[in-house]
Amino acid sequence: MRTSRRGAVDPFIVMDVMEAARQAEAEGHRIIHMEVGQPGTPAPAGARSALTRAMEQSPLGYTVGLGLPELRARIARLYGDWYNIDLDPARVVVTSGSSAGFILAFTALFDAGDRVGIGMPGYPSYRQILKALDLDVVAIEAQAENRYQLVPQDFANLDLQGLLVASPANPSGTMLDRGALSALMGAAAEQGASFISDEIYHGIEYEAKAVSALEISNEAYVINSFSKYFSMTGWRIGWMVVPEDHVRVIERLAQNLFICPPHASQIAALGAMECDAELQANLEVYKANRKVMQEGLRAAGFDRFAPPDGAFYVYADVSDITDDSRAFADEILREAGVAVTPGLDFDPDRGAGTLRFSYARSTEDIIEGLARLKTFMAERGHV
Amino acid sequence: MRTSRRGAVDPFIVMDVMEAARQAEAEGHRIIHMEVGQPGTPAPAGARSALTRAMEQSPLGYTVGLGLPELRARIARLYGDWYNIDLDPARVVVTSGSSAGFILAFTALFDAGDRVGIGMPGYPSYRQILKALDLDVVAIEAQAENRYQLVPQDFANLDLQGLLVASPANPSGTMLDRGALSALMGAAAEQGASFISDEIYHGIEYEAKAVSALEISNEAYVINSFSKYFSMTGWRIGWMVVPEDHVRVIERLAQNLFICPPHASQIAALGAMECDAELQANLEVYKANRKVMQEGLRAAGFDRFAPPDGAFYVYADVSDITDDSRAFADEILREAGVAVTPGLDFDPDRGAGTLRFSYARSTEDIIEGLARLKTFMAERGHV
Repeated sequence: MRTSRRGAVDPFIVMDVMEAARQAEAEGHRIIHMEVGQPGTPAPAGARSALTRAMEQSPLGYTVGLGLPELRARIARLYGDWYNIDLDPARVVVTSGSSAGFILAFTALFDAGDRVGIGMPGYPSYRQILKALDLDVVAIEAQAENRYQLVPQDFANLDLQGLLVASPANPSGTMLDRGALSALMGAAAEQGASFISDEIYHGIEYEAKAVSALEISNEAYVINSFSKYFSMTGWRIGWMVVPEDHVRVIERLAQNLFICPPHASQIAALGAMECDAELQANLEVYKANRKVMQEGLRAAGFDRFAPPDGAFYVYADVSDITDDSRAFADEILREAGVAVTPGLDFDPDRGAGTLRFSYARSTEDIIEGLARLKTFMAERGHV
Repeated sequence: MRTSRRGAVDPFIVMDVMEAARQAEAEGHRIIHMEVGQPGTPAPAGARSALTRAMEQSPLGYTVGLGLPELRARIARLYGDWYNIDLDPARVVVTSGSSAGFILAFTALFDAGDRVGIGMPGYPSYRQILKALDLDVVAIEAQAENRYQLVPQDFANLDLQGLLVASPANPSGTMLDRGALSALMGAAAEQGASFISDEIYHGIEYEAKAVSALEISNEAYVINSFSKYFSMTGWRIGWMVVPEDHVRVIERLAQNLFICPPHASQIAALGAMECDAELQANLEVYKANRKVMQEGLRAAGFDRFAPPDGAFYVYADVSDITDDSRAFADEILREAGVAVTPGLDFDPDRGAGTLRFSYARSTEDIIEGLARLKTFMAERGHV
């Protein structure tokens, strides 16, 4: 049996790092994990207890395709709390993680061959999902001087049918303020490009609140998730907000493509939304980690990065040290016992000169990892 | 913002029935549900207790993309128990329900514009998922005299790149025996068409064991689910078995399109696989229901159907009574208080003359529903 052209998506390069880290641990070494993109914390206690109760009371069969009405209403309320927006729950679509959100958004908005712009560096699955759906990925290089965020002139005259933007971004952690996001949305609209705003790191922000595309216009798809702020990665539960006149299209697609998001995860998510104290305590850890991470990386000679406004990553330019980030990450793992992500997954060209450091885990681990990195770099004369 | 052509999939007609049933119940009427496609039972007790334990012990973060290794190994063992096949766990892919299995299979096997054959009547989402992925749906009418299953001459010279077959089938419940399945697989291979076998109703069979495509050839995609036999619809957890040389392609697609199946559901599914006594008790209920359903439908004048070999549906030809199954189903709901599914979702043309009756719920409900149907039909002079 033959396989398709569109199914031939790239492997994740970080998987090799993770496999090498696993092997090192199996051999008895202690590895510090700065490669992971997820919290080390479980779903909040209130999420888990809500599910334990529900399992005793309900068969937890299919829900309706757009998700439990009470969860959609509760998410709509979040937009009041976080952004002071009065959002109609009918526009909220519960999804099987942001992954399902992207599949739904891309199939609802674009036909095969349509051109969709994404910024580089960016979340690697954007381009792979687009490719798997037979869409034309237009990779646009964001500049370091723009803190790795796009600006309108980056995609002028590219004839895009869609533009996808993330703030806070992965891997850089940088955000778009209201003016910058507004400028991108305006430039996309002028070009006739549908605008998709990936807001899955909202809630994990340090200096200023992240701005939602919905504060600027209702003519956008907003994609969000319970994975990060709500600490529920493995539960595969997220949501979208779509324009009012797109709800029926999305509903039919969701019914057919997914039937419904996992019922148990919907129950847990509803519980998680009442656990602010626990979630804010997680956030305090990220805050502390961010501080030691920035200081520690600079002390170790990794000083070319934009300070992260949100999320839990630092994306560092190491092109003065290496032009092979993959080999360099491998060396750091073997010599220092610290797993980091080579930038190639996020930016296939320029990523040969970058690394992503995650600070999602415990502060203790981060401190240990930074000490190891400093020793490693000192031994090589980089500090 | 415009929507895509491929996103414009058909609505489910049964949704109107379900909404009307909900309204009738809100007005205080007791409705018998013969429209539902899911068990009324929860996940087995062992599945739920496994999850309760796991929630106390693990953060339940992302798993690897292909699913927990112990679950893949346990599913491989099922092929020994059910079909006497020695299956390599490396070929087992855990998915977010069979829904994700179809998305993965279609994107891995087919490019935009490829022609994929499906039998009519059939599960409505087949054609909607294919359309959403910009594939060319080749709807092939299966004949009542072939018990609504395809035979090779139905698709000779159709120049297909893929063929999708289900046994036991939805809506008919009929199965393909080894000879019939083998003939279809051979004819597809001759035409160069990739073969996909939907086996999600395996385990729910009454006279003979269902035959897996893997008993005949390794050159097929097999799609299965924990939804039906394992009674876990809302958990969105299923699996695929793919040819050995397709595993890497599927792995990369799964990592990017879904990251991983829901971790909690994977834990629950592993627990469910050790709950045979409870699952066999569910099956005894379906067996009893099937008997009263066939007798009761005949007594009510619905006597033109193929006896179901598996699943929990009867697909009846009512074209001697109506040429508008939608209006007829509506009348049955209003007059008799029984919700049934018009055939139009399964077969947009001939379904105007068919109804699907589900017997997934309690025997008591089925008996009450059949009595109501008999009265309804007698009043109209059909009995």
